[in-house]
Amino acid sequence: MITIHHLGVSQSDRIVWLMEELGLPYKLTWYDRDPKTGGAPKEYLALHPTATAPVITDGDLVLTDSNAIVEYICQRYAQGKLCIAPDSALYPDYLYWMQYHNHLLSVFFGKSGLGEAGAESGFAKILQRREDSYYQHLNNHLAASDFLVGNELTCADILIMFDLTTFPLFGGKTLEGLDHVQAYVERVSARPAYQKAMALAGPSAKNPNA
Amino acid sequence: MITIHHLGVSQSDRIVWLMEELGLPYKLTWYDRDPKTGGAPKEYLALHPTATAPVITDGDLVLTDSNAIVEYICQRYAQGKLCIAPDSALYPDYLYWMQYHNHLLSVFFGKSGLGEAGAESGFAKILQRREDSYYQHLNNHLAASDFLVGNELTCADILIMFDLTTFPLFGGKTLEGLDHVQAYVERVSARPAYQKAMALAGPSAKNPNA
Repeated sequence: MITIHHLGVSQSDRIVWLMEELGLPYKLTWYDRDPKTGGAPKEYLALHPTATAPVITDGDLVLTDSNAIVEYICQRYAQGKLCIAPDSALYPDYLYWMQYHNHLLSVFFGKSGLGEAGAESGFAKILQRREDSYYQHLNNHLAASDFLVGNELTCADILIMFDLTTFPLFGGKTLEGLDHVQAYVERVSARPAYQKAMALAGPSAKNPNA
Repeated sequence: MITIHHLGVSQSDRIVWLMEELGLPYKLTWYDRDPKTGGAPKEYLALHPTATAPVITDGDLVLTDSNAIVEYICQRYAQGKLCIAPDSALYPDYLYWMQYHNHLLSVFFGKSGLGEAGAESGFAKILQRREDSYYQHLNNHLAASDFLVGNELTCADILIMFDLTTFPLFGGKTLEGLDHVQAYVERVSARPAYQKAMALAGPSAKNPNA
């Protein structure tokens, strides 16, 4: 059985949600952040050399990276459910939207680094153009579509929700003025599997063993 | 035929390299950056709403994002060559290393934003730990393997070379002290397809029509 090693308030909540959507069994192991530094505890850092969330174990396999984990689980345990196959007309869209959360993350990281001091630099202007265009493109896309790819939930949706709901809690871009993105977040948030996953492992969930 | 819209000094050199490795025909359309701002010209910005490199067109399809483009081309035009299929023992490794270049990019963006002013912040320490662990893990991995996944070139190699060779030109991490990464870069750089692609579209290539 797959074990999700969940660092509190981290991208690993995606994997809990995925397992609930697929109806697959899993073990959820919680790790609390250091209350002083906000960093991961030693036991978590020991799981993988790069020590970034999420991390799963599956027998001898230790796998990290959100994209890798969601594709691995869907292909190996769910016959490709929530993925789009290469022969589908939606395949280019799927490939594209699967990566979108990483673009939002890069901008979030860049702006987090900038702080207020560098807000007028040339780099800040590039970042701002990127952030504006990424969120506006997403908003325009969701004006005409209930999900990121086609008319059903895919792994691309599983990946992007964290960015849209959790970056704003840490100084990242809010969804103000992005009406179609807001409606999408509300629509997806109403899914029973999402609600169960967030209750277990979302940003406001608590370690049940603490 | 696929057209690669190549913005000078950008991640689109990956796609030229991919086409040369696969021996596929393509059209290369150059766009020079604005000599003052370093930004993309209007014609390039008009190609796609997010206007980030690389961009390809294939008939009516306009596709951006490196991961999306390399998988699309290999699956649709090369019977999955340079990809690893879900039923292969190497599949989890492939999924993992396909995303690695994005992690290096996130750290590069974060550090570019920081500049010297924020180098002592808590965020700077998190970024530094991430950068150190990502590059060290890569170095350790390449001590035992000629390529990122298994014993042959895959799309994961196509994606990461830009980060390793071009970030240092813009203040990013150099490969000093990372002997196995250096040896990997030299080994891959010796490939005829890579050399041809860099001559056509690498960081020091010039627009043939300028």
